[in-house]
Amino acid sequence: MADLDFIRKLVIPAESKIVFLVMDGIGGLPVDEGGPTELEAAHTPNLDALAAKSICGFTIPITPGITPGSGPGHLGMFGYDPCRYVIGRGVLEALGIDFDLQPQDIASRGNFCSVDEEGRVTDRRAGRIPTEKNTELVQLLREKVHLSGIELFIETVKEYRFVLVMRGKGLAADLTESDPQQLGVPPLPIRPLENAPDPAASQKTADLVNDFIGQAREALEDQRPANMILLRGLDKRPAIPSMREVFGLRAAAIAVYPMYRGLAKLVGMTALPSGTTLADEFDALEKFWPDYDFFYLHYKYTDSRGEDGDFEAKVAVIEEFDTYVPRALDLNPDVVIVTGDHSTPALLRAHSWHPVPTMLYSRYCRCDEAREYSERACARGALGNFAAVDLMPLALANALRLAKFGA
Amino acid sequence: MADLDFIRKLVIPAESKIVFLVMDGIGGLPVDEGGPTELEAAHTPNLDALAAKSICGFTIPITPGITPGSGPGHLGMFGYDPCRYVIGRGVLEALGIDFDLQPQDIASRGNFCSVDEEGRVTDRRAGRIPTEKNTELVQLLREKVHLSGIELFIETVKEYRFVLVMRGKGLAADLTESDPQQLGVPPLPIRPLENAPDPAASQKTADLVNDFIGQAREALEDQRPANMILLRGLDKRPAIPSMREVFGLRAAAIAVYPMYRGLAKLVGMTALPSGTTLADEFDALEKFWPDYDFFYLHYKYTDSRGEDGDFEAKVAVIEEFDTYVPRALDLNPDVVIVTGDHSTPALLRAHSWHPVPTMLYSRYCRCDEAREYSERACARGALGNFAAVDLMPLALANALRLAKFGA
Repeated sequence: MADLDFIRKLVIPAESKIVFLVMDGIGGLPVDEGGPTELEAAHTPNLDALAAKSICGFTIPITPGITPGSGPGHLGMFGYDPCRYVIGRGVLEALGIDFDLQPQDIASRGNFCSVDEEGRVTDRRAGRIPTEKNTELVQLLREKVHLSGIELFIETVKEYRFVLVMRGKGLAADLTESDPQQLGVPPLPIRPLENAPDPAASQKTADLVNDFIGQAREALEDQRPANMILLRGLDKRPAIPSMREVFGLRAAAIAVYPMYRGLAKLVGMTALPSGTTLADEFDALEKFWPDYDFFYLHYKYTDSRGEDGDFEAKVAVIEEFDTYVPRALDLNPDVVIVTGDHSTPALLRAHSWHPVPTMLYSRYCRCDEAREYSERACARGALGNFAAVDLMPLALANALRLAKFGA
Repeated sequence: MADLDFIRKLVIPAESKIVFLVMDGIGGLPVDEGGPTELEAAHTPNLDALAAKSICGFTIPITPGITPGSGPGHLGMFGYDPCRYVIGRGVLEALGIDFDLQPQDIASRGNFCSVDEEGRVTDRRAGRIPTEKNTELVQLLREKVHLSGIELFIETVKEYRFVLVMRGKGLAADLTESDPQQLGVPPLPIRPLENAPDPAASQKTADLVNDFIGQAREALEDQRPANMILLRGLDKRPAIPSMREVFGLRAAAIAVYPMYRGLAKLVGMTALPSGTTLADEFDALEKFWPDYDFFYLHYKYTDSRGEDGDFEAKVAVIEEFDTYVPRALDLNPDVVIVTGDHSTPALLRAHSWHPVPTMLYSRYCRCDEAREYSERACARGALGNFAAVDLMPLALANALRLAKFGA
């Protein structure tokens, strides 16, 4: 892995265009010993034709054996060391509802929960109250809870989940969580972490959060089962240099789900209006083609069907994606990369550690013997297994956007 | 490579079981251009059947081109960075005689040697005196040499080799060696290393060691050719977090030779009674199967026959090992890894830098096209070449013992 300062110094201007076609959770597993993976079972003539003139291999999202969440999976794919730039749960939750998080904001994941008369947690999810009830309770909190000098944003996510964002001067994260992660005990007071770099600011923030929690308890007193809140993952968004700054790219994101647009915005991409369907996404790619150097196009349903454990449905959505690939190629991009942020085998019904089938096409890619886009073919590919964080330098090189290092 | 703190935070409990079948020095070379390696020449139907449903590749024990000793070879395989956790020669020698080294002990490799009347070394191995003579001389040293406040252990290893262990308060390693590694000069006085972290303790220890050497010289005065000693590799055992602590595994070692049991104990494994034969070792695996999550089963003779330069004999011991493999598989382990700590090609009669043929079987391994356990087949494997230290995270992932990193 080259570090970002190293890359930044080598970046040179160019007119070339790079497209990342990202099928979330694309990597899979055979259900039966010796059988095909989802990608191998899918009929994908367009992806296979591209593989035949590409160089293929596998990205390792983090390090061998490590299963990434969506945050680290995407940061690595975008060229940022996912172990260095860590995205807190609260930040990810805020991104997921398209909240426009500012650099100094403290974001927290919130649960409505149930407590008994002694204040001990009896249900960490308040019986999974419906989203409509959540909206009512959020409205109640907005009316009743106030912190002097702090702007509060309380936003419904879904069912028992909400986001709290605190905006004000001198706030710091590096805080413990109030969620005790078990029943029969009261919520924990928020405290600064022992290694907090600015203990005074973290203490001040902890005091404010504890005040918030105290007021929330009073406001919710008569609202059983949702008569209390739990907070966790309190964090600021990480300070990440933009793709413009380090890679010299005007970068755009095309993604239907807010969280992926949010992750892209964290690294300085412009989130384009992307509609709700694959057709909408490829429409956006065509429409904004002249305006950016780099496009990240995200397809969610490969991951969703993998998490459902539905092998056949994952095959079907891969096949659907395949039919759109020619629309990207018809734009004559200089570099096309097809990959995912991680694997989501239907067999596991979850993200997994498996390396991600990846192909890179450019006029200069040094095509290998892989003739289709699949796990078995990628295992014969000349890219081998490599860290996902190295994908972006490879893309820049193939786009002739990196100068020689040294004389 | 993920660091141990990173892994430790992701470890989750599980009931799954992991077996490492380790053929020491398994990797080989063809004797004739285009010919088979030892592993390719061997008839190994059981290992080949396992390869056909496994994912295969090569571990790189340290970094490319580096030949490991047994210490670093094993530490890497066990998931510990062998460049960070360094095992001194004295410690390895003590482990090799099953000495129960305590964390504060200073262990040293000793040679009986010959010196002339001016005290200059004339033979660093004292004419390779027989082990019986060594035992006599060790007895003499035990009687005649004493250091105030220090418990001394002087133990015969073999021929001219012995181990010295000093036990007492406030001892430190970080010392030079007395062996001048050349003839015609006197042994060197022991001194603290320039960068010793605790110079006072190292100076105190050096004074004690020099006192020991002086008393030994007097005791051995009339014992030509073994009339002096040389000490090297003075060290404490490295402070290594246990496999229980970092990987959440109750780990057991099955190994006939003391040194390998000792290496396993360094990382917190329980060394099981392992007998003297392969049959004994697999008996132990079956007997203790319910009691541990992780088993390391070590087979020495692949390395021994490689060091002998005896290609055919190495083939024969590989074939013998193969016949036992079904006994491990019949226990239905969740993860089976077959590997070695390094290569020992008969052609080189020594450990070598060559990557080690490795296969990993689990239900989730994502089987590749390698259909036998051999160097040529592993070169087609989807694991590719990877650092040995990454093997343990892969094993944990396949055993479903690692949580997702990040949200």
